[in-house]
Amino acid sequence: MASNEVDGMTLAQSTTLTPLELHRHLSKLHPELTVLSPQDLQGRHPGEHSGNFGAGVMVQPATVDAAAALVGWCAKNDVAIVPQGGLTGLVGGNVSVAGEVILSTARLNRILAIEPEEMTATVEAGVTLEALQQAAAEHGLTPGIDLGSRGSATIGGMVSTNAGGILAFRNGVMRHQVLGLEAVLPSGDIFSDLTRVVKVSAGPDLKQLFIGGEGAFGLVTKVVLKLEPQRPYRATAMLGAADARTALSVIRHLRTLPGVTLEAAEMMWPRYIRDHARLKGLDLSWLEEDASALLVEISGESVDAAAATLEDQLAELWEPLDLKGGIVAKSLDQARRFWDIREDSGFYYAEIPEAASFDVSVPPTRLDA
Amino acid sequence: MASNEVDGMTLAQSTTLTPLELHRHLSKLHPELTVLSPQDLQGRHPGEHSGNFGAGVMVQPATVDAAAALVGWCAKNDVAIVPQGGLTGLVGGNVSVAGEVILSTARLNRILAIEPEEMTATVEAGVTLEALQQAAAEHGLTPGIDLGSRGSATIGGMVSTNAGGILAFRNGVMRHQVLGLEAVLPSGDIFSDLTRVVKVSAGPDLKQLFIGGEGAFGLVTKVVLKLEPQRPYRATAMLGAADARTALSVIRHLRTLPGVTLEAAEMMWPRYIRDHARLKGLDLSWLEEDASALLVEISGESVDAAAATLEDQLAELWEPLDLKGGIVAKSLDQARRFWDIREDSGFYYAEIPEAASFDVSVPPTRLDA
Repeated sequence: MASNEVDGMTLAQSTTLTPLELHRHLSKLHPELTVLSPQDLQGRHPGEHSGNFGAGVMVQPATVDAAAALVGWCAKNDVAIVPQGGLTGLVGGNVSVAGEVILSTARLNRILAIEPEEMTATVEAGVTLEALQQAAAEHGLTPGIDLGSRGSATIGGMVSTNAGGILAFRNGVMRHQVLGLEAVLPSGDIFSDLTRVVKVSAGPDLKQLFIGGEGAFGLVTKVVLKLEPQRPYRATAMLGAADARTALSVIRHLRTLPGVTLEAAEMMWPRYIRDHARLKGLDLSWLEEDASALLVEISGESVDAAAATLEDQLAELWEPLDLKGGIVAKSLDQARRFWDIREDSGFYYAEIPEAASFDVSVPPTRLDA
Repeated sequence: MASNEVDGMTLAQSTTLTPLELHRHLSKLHPELTVLSPQDLQGRHPGEHSGNFGAGVMVQPATVDAAAALVGWCAKNDVAIVPQGGLTGLVGGNVSVAGEVILSTARLNRILAIEPEEMTATVEAGVTLEALQQAAAEHGLTPGIDLGSRGSATIGGMVSTNAGGILAFRNGVMRHQVLGLEAVLPSGDIFSDLTRVVKVSAGPDLKQLFIGGEGAFGLVTKVVLKLEPQRPYRATAMLGAADARTALSVIRHLRTLPGVTLEAAEMMWPRYIRDHARLKGLDLSWLEEDASALLVEISGESVDAAAATLEDQLAELWEPLDLKGGIVAKSLDQARRFWDIREDSGFYYAEIPEAASFDVSVPPTRLDA
């Protein structure tokens, strides 16, 4: 362990290398490693947390071999690694300090294959969700997972944190879309299980440990994802609901309707939607005071059929569920504005910087508890 | 280790207890353990493999505590355990020999909860798929997984082997339906993670190791499963396809149709379907010689709508895909007869007892290789 040896003596405690020393060592390690110094990082945005670039040295491997060389070197020299993808994490998982090395997946950004007949995609970890969504859309397909930070969130980060998003109630979370995976183990060895089929039951599935593993078991470098068919004919509505139970009843009802698919459903609390309306000048006169807003999107045989179904169902549910207002989007543009309310939650952090991020799941039947 | 000590001397090699000795020891272990002797087992069917009851002693815990007591005792006494569920496994995973203990989940057979609003079910490991299907159906729900041996296959066995079945192309395999899990570890300790939500990303998900783990990491005792909405309005067709690529094109086409859902798709090779027709007196005059048969089932807004869509699509695909015949079921009864062809493959084993079981997954784009 070179870093622990000074003048031929092994020290009991680890000697921390400075960012500049790390930069010097790592620059010679592998031709496919780009190494950024504290100075290089100064011009870059650290993402959602100001402490993300604390390590002062960032390495961007362009191949799995380069990543393995870096991880192996760090293991040998007792240097901690902080993996970074799109820097959109809100819970401080990207924060780094001097003496550590940031491993950015920014150059592992190739979509290696889209197989339309298989409905699979093979991508490197640094590919953004949006890039994959666009590539899949050319074949009428989608990754089946979506979240507000799609433009920056990377597939590797989404796998390592087992990201959920707005489609989880139907397609599940990231874990459920992963067929195959390649990772660099803490030793610097490469784990490879790039299977492309869903029916695999040969023994324990070790790649599951990397999903949601937050990097503890290794650095995810490649992923094979299951793709889903796009259902392009959609209708979107916003409804007023007195409470979570009402919203659940609407969701349950729409999920079990024949001929249509509930594509997305999100509930927003009264204060959230009122603050948003105030900020953006939205007209919420249709929504009763103190009602929560439920955003639902369904797909059907055509746009008109989906919209007609949504209007019919709204009318049918109005009395029994005592809905507090409802509006069906008249255009794609209006539907986008609805979704922007849900996705642009950044104004809360702008107004209340000390607000804790929270992302909590509760069994629906326990919502009132 | 009591079994290794004879007259106060510890033997280097393990002394194997006889089935009757095991029976005597285990009968006193826990009030909720039913212990069957070689004699008790003689009247029972050993399932798909004649060697399944080789151990000669079977224990049926009725609670997780009783199971834990058994596993703990076996760990302390170096006695191997062979877990058995529905005994429908075809690859010899249930085979046992003298000196081992069979742990049957037959008495862990309670459906603990169906939560329709959550769309979850909590069941003990010995519940059969069919029992769960029936309980879920009362709420318009389904486990989202189905296989021919539904009447005997248990949820615990399906989790431990990560069972697939005929809906895997859409809903995934057993792993994708499991939200929570309880298991007895090899030490006799109880692992419990009975979460009921899909959005969980707090650290690595250790319960994944039990799924497809074949019992190596522990005995699954309880499972929380995600349920799916039933789509009852269905139409079924059987088509002639020249090759796998044609079948895939049909499947892909039906999966991406708006307004309908492809519920199931299975391909049967020419010899299989011809042998079946011969055996059961089926009329296959509509199917061209040497064609494979593709069985597809879709759901729609109504039975008529689904059948009309299927007929339209068949007509549309006929020329471009050079289909070798096609027939849409005229009744539920006829649809059931179609499915019986796929599911009753037992006649092959009856005719060719030495036939190897095979269950192989290949990426669709490699089918021709």
